[in-house]
Amino acid sequence: MNMDSVVNLCVRRRFAYPSAEIYDSPAGFYNYGPLGVQLKRGLENEWWNSFVSSREDVEGIDGCILTPRQIWKASGHLEAFNDPVVSCAKCKVKERADALIERELGLSVEGLTPEELRKLIDDKDLKCPKCGGPLKTEDPFNLMFKTHVGVLADESTEAYLRPETAQLIFTDYKIAANAARLKTPFGIAQIGRAFRNEISPRQFVFRCREFTQYELEWFYRDEKPDLAEFKDLKVLVLDAKTQEKGGSEKMVAYPKIAFKNAWVAYWAGACVKWLQSLGLKDLRLREHVPKELSHYSSETWDIEFKFLDWGWKELLGVADRSTYDLEQHAKESGKDLSLNQEGKFLPRVVEPSGGFDRLILALIVQGLDERDEKTVLRLHPRIAPVQVAVFPLQKKGLTEKAREVFESLRKEFRTQYDETGSIGKRYARSDEAGVPYCVTIDYDSLEDGEATVRDRDSGKQVRMPFQQIPQIIRNSIERA
Amino acid sequence: MNMDSVVNLCVRRRFAYPSAEIYDSPAGFYNYGPLGVQLKRGLENEWWNSFVSSREDVEGIDGCILTPRQIWKASGHLEAFNDPVVSCAKCKVKERADALIERELGLSVEGLTPEELRKLIDDKDLKCPKCGGPLKTEDPFNLMFKTHVGVLADESTEAYLRPETAQLIFTDYKIAANAARLKTPFGIAQIGRAFRNEISPRQFVFRCREFTQYELEWFYRDEKPDLAEFKDLKVLVLDAKTQEKGGSEKMVAYPKIAFKNAWVAYWAGACVKWLQSLGLKDLRLREHVPKELSHYSSETWDIEFKFLDWGWKELLGVADRSTYDLEQHAKESGKDLSLNQEGKFLPRVVEPSGGFDRLILALIVQGLDERDEKTVLRLHPRIAPVQVAVFPLQKKGLTEKAREVFESLRKEFRTQYDETGSIGKRYARSDEAGVPYCVTIDYDSLEDGEATVRDRDSGKQVRMPFQQIPQIIRNSIERA
Repeated sequence: MNMDSVVNLCVRRRFAYPSAEIYDSPAGFYNYGPLGVQLKRGLENEWWNSFVSSREDVEGIDGCILTPRQIWKASGHLEAFNDPVVSCAKCKVKERADALIERELGLSVEGLTPEELRKLIDDKDLKCPKCGGPLKTEDPFNLMFKTHVGVLADESTEAYLRPETAQLIFTDYKIAANAARLKTPFGIAQIGRAFRNEISPRQFVFRCREFTQYELEWFYRDEKPDLAEFKDLKVLVLDAKTQEKGGSEKMVAYPKIAFKNAWVAYWAGACVKWLQSLGLKDLRLREHVPKELSHYSSETWDIEFKFLDWGWKELLGVADRSTYDLEQHAKESGKDLSLNQEGKFLPRVVEPSGGFDRLILALIVQGLDERDEKTVLRLHPRIAPVQVAVFPLQKKGLTEKAREVFESLRKEFRTQYDETGSIGKRYARSDEAGVPYCVTIDYDSLEDGEATVRDRDSGKQVRMPFQQIPQIIRNSIERA
Repeated sequence: MNMDSVVNLCVRRRFAYPSAEIYDSPAGFYNYGPLGVQLKRGLENEWWNSFVSSREDVEGIDGCILTPRQIWKASGHLEAFNDPVVSCAKCKVKERADALIERELGLSVEGLTPEELRKLIDDKDLKCPKCGGPLKTEDPFNLMFKTHVGVLADESTEAYLRPETAQLIFTDYKIAANAARLKTPFGIAQIGRAFRNEISPRQFVFRCREFTQYELEWFYRDEKPDLAEFKDLKVLVLDAKTQEKGGSEKMVAYPKIAFKNAWVAYWAGACVKWLQSLGLKDLRLREHVPKELSHYSSETWDIEFKFLDWGWKELLGVADRSTYDLEQHAKESGKDLSLNQEGKFLPRVVEPSGGFDRLILALIVQGLDERDEKTVLRLHPRIAPVQVAVFPLQKKGLTEKAREVFESLRKEFRTQYDETGSIGKRYARSDEAGVPYCVTIDYDSLEDGEATVRDRDSGKQVRMPFQQIPQIIRNSIERA
């Protein structure tokens, strides 16, 4: 199995598919169909419940997407959120310098500066891939989408589609903390769309131009976390030192990992446990090597997932952002952003941050099982878009009873009723959509009040009284 | 009480407040704080459950915000989604023609054409409100925010922030219907952000430049709805005829309302019942008079709410869009958008559509009760951001027991623990945040295992055993 078959299933069953498909739409935009939107909404609620509602020390906000220039001047995005671009002096085609080098020379250039990229192009004498003409370096291309607010269109009315949700938390953290009477350490969280004008969007929903983020900014003074809950956790780890020696990941007990900042350890652990609770198994914790680190960060760990033939890729990052962002916004706005809690201070920040689009993709990769010409999507039953399917074996004479069973189950579970096609086809359709439980009503059901419950993963079929079905499914979801 | 006190509460308790407050941000953008985001997420889930998950005939999608030019060419927004603008020939200031006339002449110009507005300005000899200079008509101003996708910036890469979520449903309805095997009549629904570059945004979150919509497009052939569930519904009605005669609204039994399209009747009824279930009482169903109707609609009814001194305003609209949008997209895309279900046909469409921002505002208006220097926010307990607050009467010796009660309640309800300030202050803070139930632990509680439950609305305080509290609250929420 490879990523092509994953993308194929996603598009065929309309979990996700290119946006505005009936038009010639630009690359890098995807819509979610009926199954995809249920999965996405379910994951958003799972994250919100785990990281916000169920915690007393985290509160949420919901900020605007369209935001004024000053925010992005302060954050450094206006200046530094660029991609290096080369163009052909002959045919004028433009391309990202790093993408061109990676493709043409087959080497990774992650973390190289624009100058280093330029030097590589010269040294290796790279030519235009279209016409063979000479390549020249263009001004770097800013990845933020720009527009104007109001009737005038000048610099004073410039606004940007936020390239991350984090900055809205930094500008508003004091407002939210005061409103909710939070004392350090505390978190402010946000879920929402973000936009990046990627020059070469690729890998389906993995790197797209419009995506949905979940971000939590954790503000602290000198408090230390309790790491006891991670003492039995084991995870694949690849730290910066090992990478520099060319080593590979190995399984490590969580307390042995050499985190610099204990809050980075805490939030990376919380995120690993959350991802595991959704059914993700192939996870790796990889530390950024020094040249990869963003300008604001002294320590970052990515939680990566193995996307089959695409290899290990970031699902979620946990970064020590220190006081960088708050200092920048205080300077740019001229406002006092320090807290006044037993003395005035600017809190330090650790940020766990990820995207739902790539999480959905990872869950489908992890769950997809294709063999013997059968496709089964083993999504965790808690997040499966449809949890129970109810089938009458035949339409004739069984509809009424099957509808009755359906009505009793839909109160508690996301339940679908399906009476079209052979029972084999209905099982196959459900398996592919990730439905964990199918309940079939047959002629005997009318006599004995029992139905057959089929478990997607074990394939086992068990006959049981109608009244027992909710309890059996409830237990099974909890145990999964 | 007036709208100023409502806006004041919203901003003070940070339900909603101007976005990026620390900067000089443009008007018409609002963020939601800790209480506001819980209310908003709760309402989104309420709508989704009522109109999508709990129905077999409606499925959801989640489409992109940034969308190509062609969609808005087809929909008519590029051509017709304009505001008339006047400018001063002397001081160059620009303003919306309709806003200027309404303010300067004190009359409503809803539904007038740009030419009629121009004529009014001339006839009444209106001058620049800033400098008294002569006014001239500008090209109409398109309300869509424009940007470019990719490295080039020309017409071929133009993209727009969607001004409504509806069009993404029209372009994708066949994709979604086929994926979910839907037959007419069926609905496709979407929740998401939309953007309008209003020249004069006003009235807090009522008319802002970025907002969150809920839209359902209902596709049908010649099926008719069952209106039995509305037979006992009564609602204030103001139809087009009465408006033209200068009459006012009156209470009417639902089956007597003169709807043209029975599906408009069905969806308007479903929406009224849903709004009522959230606790909204002051609702009016108002038919658009002919000159108000959008170009695509032959019948539209607004569900309006009385916003105190702002008067009746639209919360939600139900429009007969017929086959207009599908025809336009079929023409523009060159794709066959007809369904093939026992013969080929283009379905007709009825659309219920509203915005969460103004719904939140209406709920706060309806719930706000200010008297005797007390502020109580009577939000329906199902949607209150915090449902239960737990207080130890004093910190000393009571924290442990109060925490125990808190832990038992938070499993089921959105629960907050608060031990700071006097008990009176804590009640006052909770009342203002709309918390329906407060549970207080005192020294007797340690002996008798009972706590005092205070009901926000009745003010009654009842002492009861800890174990009975969840059941009492559960029943109270269901009865509300």
